[in-house]
Amino acid sequence: MSKTTNLIYGHHPVVEAIQAGKAVEKVYFQQGIRGELEKEIRQLTKAHGIPMQVVPKEKLNKLVRGNHQGVAAWLALVAYQELEDIIPHVFERGELPLLLLLDGITDVRNFGAICRSAACAGAHAVVVAQSGAAPANEEAMKASAGALARIPLCRVRSMFTAVEWLQQAGVQVVATALSERAVPLYAADLNLPTAFLLGSEGEGVHPKFLKMADRVVKIPQATDFDSYNVSVAAGIVLYETLRQRLS
Amino acid sequence: MSKTTNLIYGHHPVVEAIQAGKAVEKVYFQQGIRGELEKEIRQLTKAHGIPMQVVPKEKLNKLVRGNHQGVAAWLALVAYQELEDIIPHVFERGELPLLLLLDGITDVRNFGAICRSAACAGAHAVVVAQSGAAPANEEAMKASAGALARIPLCRVRSMFTAVEWLQQAGVQVVATALSERAVPLYAADLNLPTAFLLGSEGEGVHPKFLKMADRVVKIPQATDFDSYNVSVAAGIVLYETLRQRLS
Repeated sequence: MSKTTNLIYGHHPVVEAIQAGKAVEKVYFQQGIRGELEKEIRQLTKAHGIPMQVVPKEKLNKLVRGNHQGVAAWLALVAYQELEDIIPHVFERGELPLLLLLDGITDVRNFGAICRSAACAGAHAVVVAQSGAAPANEEAMKASAGALARIPLCRVRSMFTAVEWLQQAGVQVVATALSERAVPLYAADLNLPTAFLLGSEGEGVHPKFLKMADRVVKIPQATDFDSYNVSVAAGIVLYETLRQRLS
Repeated sequence: MSKTTNLIYGHHPVVEAIQAGKAVEKVYFQQGIRGELEKEIRQLTKAHGIPMQVVPKEKLNKLVRGNHQGVAAWLALVAYQELEDIIPHVFERGELPLLLLLDGITDVRNFGAICRSAACAGAHAVVVAQSGAAPANEEAMKASAGALARIPLCRVRSMFTAVEWLQQAGVQVVATALSERAVPLYAADLNLPTAFLLGSEGEGVHPKFLKMADRVVKIPQATDFDSYNVSVAAGIVLYETLRQRLS
């Protein structure tokens, strides 16, 4: 957590921030407090999937210069958005949806670099899962050259559900992998609403997503050397999409 | 300098390494030694553009477990090659040359990532200038996923001369820039011998190179947000080349 991350504190501000759907990274709750406040905070954090940590009063006193009433929270650097809010507007504007779904990409620099490319290419959203994703922190912000604050970012509870929802909304899900089923990237028709699914460097896209995907594509290589870095791969799929749509 | 960098020492080994054209990063020479050895080392390092540092005997004793005779040298992690040796062989094999020329790219992670993509795409060489380039060190090696040891790397005294030489050898030099003269990357014919010239993040390709270049291309963006990271841009130009040559 850094100096530009927002810390809020006190019963009402924290409850209101969570209820308003603000991106809360973490809640600190004072050890030993029982009763209605504890119950409410526990329920709200659980319902919104926000990590809650019980800490000694001294820790809160150190964090907060003010009356914290036993509770404080870090707001995220970015405001997450809902996929369900974004896609209909893209269609209404007559644009072809273009999204990136990141499956298990935990490296903050890669995450930031991907968001930078997404902003350049005018992608409509970058989608990450609530767990197992790189945090949208200062280092990611720096690697993104500020794009994290600009690109719509969605944090979904389940990438599986997000993929299903997108497919039902008429968006083809294109996974990148070096599998047998994969066709060269340039052979895929990207003049359709498209969400690319990119996996982590080590693991790649999870097999269950490869099964679900409408298409599996590979980025051509001239050698069998390793594979492209995932942020480079993201830049390439975005480029190919713009090429097909513009040329 | 790290544990995997090779340290050599003693009069003959150091002189022979330099004369054999090995990539010597730096020579340490013992303070106070005069005469033929000093003269020879001074002349050789100067002639080969190798930095030489005069150090106290204690420093050499600390570096070397053996009889250093007043001189030691770090060999580079990679073996640099000569552009003039590479290109004729590429033509002889009936292949279309594909090279990356890096102008002032000092960030070691970007340099490493570019070499990784170059290895994937089967580029024939990555060319850097002797000064103002990222060192081929451990961090670059890591970012390259080992590609630095695999991709032919050329370190030229003058990028200007290298560009001229390539053009005379029948290789088109394609600079990437967001200038007015630039055409979209996909509009350039890459089914020709091609060397891409990429500039640093801050400065871009130097205007004198933009003037010399046979083509200036831009990577399409859908927004005016910043620009692609240079290692992403390198991946994209390599991808577009493979796309045109394979499809």
